[in-house]
Amino acid sequence: MTTATAPPDPGGLDQDLVRNEVDGVLDGFLTRKAGTFAEQQLPAEVTDVLRDFLHAGGKRIRPLLCLAGWHAAGGQGRPRAIGQAAASLEMFHAFCLIHDDVMDQSDTRRGHPAVHRTLAAHHTHGRTSTAADRLGTSAAVLIGDLALVWADELLHTAGLTRRQLTDVLPLIDVMRTEVMYGQYLDVTATGTPTGDVERALSICRYKTAKYTVERPLHIGAALAGAGPAALAALTAYAIPVGEAFQLRDDLLGVFGDPALTGKPALDDLREGKATVLAALALRHASRVQADQLRLFLGCRTLTDDQADTAREIIVATGAAHRVETMIADRYERALRHLESAPFEPASADLLREFADSAVRRQT
Amino acid sequence: MTTATAPPDPGGLDQDLVRNEVDGVLDGFLTRKAGTFAEQQLPAEVTDVLRDFLHAGGKRIRPLLCLAGWHAAGGQGRPRAIGQAAASLEMFHAFCLIHDDVMDQSDTRRGHPAVHRTLAAHHTHGRTSTAADRLGTSAAVLIGDLALVWADELLHTAGLTRRQLTDVLPLIDVMRTEVMYGQYLDVTATGTPTGDVERALSICRYKTAKYTVERPLHIGAALAGAGPAALAALTAYAIPVGEAFQLRDDLLGVFGDPALTGKPALDDLREGKATVLAALALRHASRVQADQLRLFLGCRTLTDDQADTAREIIVATGAAHRVETMIADRYERALRHLESAPFEPASADLLREFADSAVRRQT
Repeated sequence: MTTATAPPDPGGLDQDLVRNEVDGVLDGFLTRKAGTFAEQQLPAEVTDVLRDFLHAGGKRIRPLLCLAGWHAAGGQGRPRAIGQAAASLEMFHAFCLIHDDVMDQSDTRRGHPAVHRTLAAHHTHGRTSTAADRLGTSAAVLIGDLALVWADELLHTAGLTRRQLTDVLPLIDVMRTEVMYGQYLDVTATGTPTGDVERALSICRYKTAKYTVERPLHIGAALAGAGPAALAALTAYAIPVGEAFQLRDDLLGVFGDPALTGKPALDDLREGKATVLAALALRHASRVQADQLRLFLGCRTLTDDQADTAREIIVATGAAHRVETMIADRYERALRHLESAPFEPASADLLREFADSAVRRQT
Repeated sequence: MTTATAPPDPGGLDQDLVRNEVDGVLDGFLTRKAGTFAEQQLPAEVTDVLRDFLHAGGKRIRPLLCLAGWHAAGGQGRPRAIGQAAASLEMFHAFCLIHDDVMDQSDTRRGHPAVHRTLAAHHTHGRTSTAADRLGTSAAVLIGDLALVWADELLHTAGLTRRQLTDVLPLIDVMRTEVMYGQYLDVTATGTPTGDVERALSICRYKTAKYTVERPLHIGAALAGAGPAALAALTAYAIPVGEAFQLRDDLLGVFGDPALTGKPALDDLREGKATVLAALALRHASRVQADQLRLFLGCRTLTDDQADTAREIIVATGAAHRVETMIADRYERALRHLESAPFEPASADLLREFADSAVRRQT
């Protein structure tokens, strides 16, 4: 029962609440798909694997920001259609991660075997291990593809008005091109990092700032009928926060505690990820330091000792400190924009909290 | 100038005319994308590679059938929006083929290097050949993903009415799930073919009959406002023709002339494709024949002599003859439906021609 002294309705932006809502939509969708497949005598493997993947973890950041965008732009209550549109972003994200793991040949994700590894293990019978691995990769590409088109189906069947649908489709289109382009830049730059800080920032912007923060906010806001001014205000907040989020990720990828991040602290170095951190280190390194770094970054057999040396060089060049400064600058800029933005209070609170966690997180 | 004796307007269903129209739309789209990327200092590789791929060949079957569906259901003239919606199916098909080649690890497509091979060759500088191959595969997965989302963008920006868009999106959703599911069944069955004819027919139906024939016709018809009866009439034609098309493909994959089909005559056997042809051969083989076939089908090192023996067994079991009979039955069934269907004459002519070429083709 609501009383006069109850806190104002936070617009349902509580993280656990949103997670339950999103997971309920995704579970329901996959259960219906599994039912249709069963009627057609098709195997349940696809829906089972995808459901397990979605349940294994993930912070539901994009649906949360989508709902924050909805409320920020004046959306009232939480119509079912809006919840489902927000959930569709999590299904799209499953696509991104499944393909990402195939491309990176990662063994694990969220502490479980990566989808392609799970599928290879499912299909060893009557196959060599090479053939099973190949099948696992192919099947994971296809499950990723299905997650992508099911994200669309969730959106198309959410019950949005025709107006909402036609307003939001261009943003979905642009979000997808941006994240794929960012991934493309990342994939083609990985293994041959250079001192090109601009390129690294470009990857960071497309792959993360726009995809993870700006576009989810825009999509939610567009569903509430937001005009160009509201979208621009969200952008002014989203891009610095999103860049800070990725810059923190780059630092955690090299200096993070594997027990907290859930991924080996050697991966980014061994892959030779073309991060801003790596670019700054290479740009400000002495000749000797640069030669050594180039040898280490992208070396698939990098040892723990070599990794420690690489970390020392990165610190010695001032790159780690520079990245911390960039994060702090961006955080301040985002908060400044937030203070002057016309967002309703509960959304502004969530965006402030998100900015805090983006820059302070250890996982 | 039209005179009283001129032949009736064929509704613009001439294959060369449609190809030009489709290619014009796709070229224009990629040129605009390349322009946007250039403004953002992003590399042109993605659009260049995709353009080359689209120009390298392909029969534009799906756009043609989409337009046939449009006219069959009473669509008048050829609004620009309808042409662009039809072209979007070709962009989607590029996605299918690029990912297909990654999954099959094919070296060539349409007589040119497969996209992942082209990209590996672009990025050899500073990389081992293993690293370049891996990059080529990752980049091809991403270009495939982009083709998929750009197919959507072509549709969303075609200028369809809101009504047309909301009518057609559910069909796009179902088409994509069907073809991916068919691919999934195919990928997981490949390498371990059995005598399970039903499974093989299921793959054939989802991967080809529905994807290549039924859904393009439905999509075109839905754009013209077709109701359930018209869609059902198109299905009655499309499923048998589509199955016949794939059954012919299965025969060509084993008995075809590589000079005409453009792919090595050993591939299907070496892959161990779970075709209806292989299933029938295994089902009707003697124990000795079956043992030998199981040894050959899926053997990556199959020699020409062994392939000849496999072909002899397939013929001796009666499987090749049975498949020919299935093709003939399906062709007749499709034409019978076509005769009684209420389609306007130019579309009916095209559908008759398509059925002829589907069963008689040598490539």
